[in-house]
Amino acid sequence: MPTISNRGNSLPASPIRKLVPFAEEAKRKGKKIYHLNIGQPDIPTPPSAIKAVQEKDIKVLAYSHSAGFESYRRKMTDYYKSFGAVISHEDIIISTGASEAILFGVMSCLDPGDEIIVPEPFYANYNGFSIAGGVTVKPITAKIDDGFALPPISAFERLITSKTKAIMICNPSNPTGYLYSKEELLALKEIVTKHNLFLFVDEVYREFCYGGEEYCSVLTIDGLEEHAIVFDSISKRYSACGARIGAIVSRNKHVIATAMKFAQARLSPPTFAQILAEATLDVESTYIEEAIEEYDRRRKVLVARLNEMEGVTCPTPKGAFYTFVRLPVDNTDNFCKWLLEDFEHNGATVMMAPGTGFYATEGLGKNEARLAYVLNIEDLKAALDCLEAALKVYPGRI
Amino acid sequence: MPTISNRGNSLPASPIRKLVPFAEEAKRKGKKIYHLNIGQPDIPTPPSAIKAVQEKDIKVLAYSHSAGFESYRRKMTDYYKSFGAVISHEDIIISTGASEAILFGVMSCLDPGDEIIVPEPFYANYNGFSIAGGVTVKPITAKIDDGFALPPISAFERLITSKTKAIMICNPSNPTGYLYSKEELLALKEIVTKHNLFLFVDEVYREFCYGGEEYCSVLTIDGLEEHAIVFDSISKRYSACGARIGAIVSRNKHVIATAMKFAQARLSPPTFAQILAEATLDVESTYIEEAIEEYDRRRKVLVARLNEMEGVTCPTPKGAFYTFVRLPVDNTDNFCKWLLEDFEHNGATVMMAPGTGFYATEGLGKNEARLAYVLNIEDLKAALDCLEAALKVYPGRI
Repeated sequence: MPTISNRGNSLPASPIRKLVPFAEEAKRKGKKIYHLNIGQPDIPTPPSAIKAVQEKDIKVLAYSHSAGFESYRRKMTDYYKSFGAVISHEDIIISTGASEAILFGVMSCLDPGDEIIVPEPFYANYNGFSIAGGVTVKPITAKIDDGFALPPISAFERLITSKTKAIMICNPSNPTGYLYSKEELLALKEIVTKHNLFLFVDEVYREFCYGGEEYCSVLTIDGLEEHAIVFDSISKRYSACGARIGAIVSRNKHVIATAMKFAQARLSPPTFAQILAEATLDVESTYIEEAIEEYDRRRKVLVARLNEMEGVTCPTPKGAFYTFVRLPVDNTDNFCKWLLEDFEHNGATVMMAPGTGFYATEGLGKNEARLAYVLNIEDLKAALDCLEAALKVYPGRI
Repeated sequence: MPTISNRGNSLPASPIRKLVPFAEEAKRKGKKIYHLNIGQPDIPTPPSAIKAVQEKDIKVLAYSHSAGFESYRRKMTDYYKSFGAVISHEDIIISTGASEAILFGVMSCLDPGDEIIVPEPFYANYNGFSIAGGVTVKPITAKIDDGFALPPISAFERLITSKTKAIMICNPSNPTGYLYSKEELLALKEIVTKHNLFLFVDEVYREFCYGGEEYCSVLTIDGLEEHAIVFDSISKRYSACGARIGAIVSRNKHVIATAMKFAQARLSPPTFAQILAEATLDVESTYIEEAIEEYDRRRKVLVARLNEMEGVTCPTPKGAFYTFVRLPVDNTDNFCKWLLEDFEHNGATVMMAPGTGFYATEGLGKNEARLAYVLNIEDLKAALDCLEAALKVYPGRI
């Protein structure tokens, strides 16, 4: 019998996935589950964008250009200009979600055996793209007690070897909600230019910044033209996760030309979804403004309530729609499973993402968890009531 | 300045892509181009399937299950049963086109440095997926004078090393139109079971078989349960190339479980397109029957006309919608470029895919080309008039 690949074997199943059977069983038993575990927004997708797809006259649903509709890419340049990034439509390849954009970045910039430095906790799926590409993630631990700020540059320097090809961050961060400052990005600029590294930045949560914080895209930083590779997506911005439309954006012509060859091999991004994506560029700015306000209200409720709970540490996230907390429990893998299997409060329970899945360093994250604030305020409050009640009775409380 | 990856550098740009600027220039000059170069069918996508997308009430365009809609996968099992394949919905992962399915297969079954044996000429994009995965393609030349039949098994055996993990075919074949017989598949069974290899089969043209030939899917062959990995797609079957919906199908549970981890890393296949794909399963069978009849008419015209041309060799393809021909020219890369740049007949010319792009062995395919019969009969005849006239005056004729 033929055997599967080592890379396939080495890809960990995410801790959230391990919880799914317990969640299904709980639902079968009639328990209500508040999902704080996933980044699937509840905000409606702009109806005008859905309408654009549904009113389009299509006879043959044909391949598009491998880089995506030229009309869409040209229009995107205005969007990038709106936050100060001077980008040509030829610097953009439309991808099937940011996921594919990251894969294009890995394939175009790194070879099997190469290394990429990533502050942890990080978005667990970066493991999938790295392992697919035969690339090793070298983590640097960002600390909850520092609010998950960028670790000191000296920590990065210690990890750089001849195999290091890139540093990757998510800004604002999934899973921590941390918003990197311009100063932190300039510190990263110094190190990537000094060591000839790429700087991969996942900017899919770009719009979601709170408390008057200013967003700084690496695309606006002079001197990073050849280094910065940005991964983008409409999934969160326009609550269109199922569209699967993202982009890889860079002013490094060699990278884009190389990514284009991988893009041609897979022919084209999805046509229906590109129609939707292009239409989102005509959506009134109030759509995003209202979404930001709504997330901000939830954020405030979430952070305040969590910090009121005895033994809970919750840094204040300034972006995205996640917070990463420390809980007074033995082990959040066990706790999250227990919440689904053995606990209920008013007929309901809460599902969260255990912290271990976001760390590459073995043993870290065991009393941490990621919470997404993608529920309306009322449900969010009910979810927090559950969590508070659960922490009082959990047998593994420390 | 950071440098791109070796794998990115080693991925060849396809010879068709190199022709695109010449085609654009020809169009700018007002020349009509008959496109025999791409597999984009002209047959309308089933209107009922497009309607299913356009009438669906969607508030939040959400992620789907990472393996695709369960309802769609369950319905697909009936489709597979229709040609004798007993498949459970858990043996299927819906992918973003067959392209992503192939990538999942490569990632799940092969490691960087492993080898895959592929009869050439083969679909040029297999290079992209192999290079992305760090895998080496070992070609075995199928000969035009044998009608591109499966090379003798002894030729495969000679190539097998400790690094060989899989054999891959496309059945019926893009680019040759060759339809593998059950006997040929049984010969492949013998070698993959003897050497513990996977058998990757791209079956996206399954329906398109002509002249009363019976199709044999590897999914129906006993004893290949653990070896056969099938790549599928609705792109050609339902003329829905832009949907980007395919599937990886296997009864090898380890492979599917591993592919599932890569599928989870990219979250989900496109939602709109899955609605379309599920609706195609309710399309009347006359849709496919009429498409097959139409392609068969074109095939007959194409093969007859090509073989009437002096010096042209065209084996009779029994499947898909391509034929791979030998032309009496010095070099088809030059000839195809000359057709676009320097030739016209009644204000028109023809674009074809040069043969070299389909061979991994350096130097092969130089007087061959692939022609897709995706034009209506009238245009196809006009395209053949162009080709005939061109062959008479081409300065590099041999």
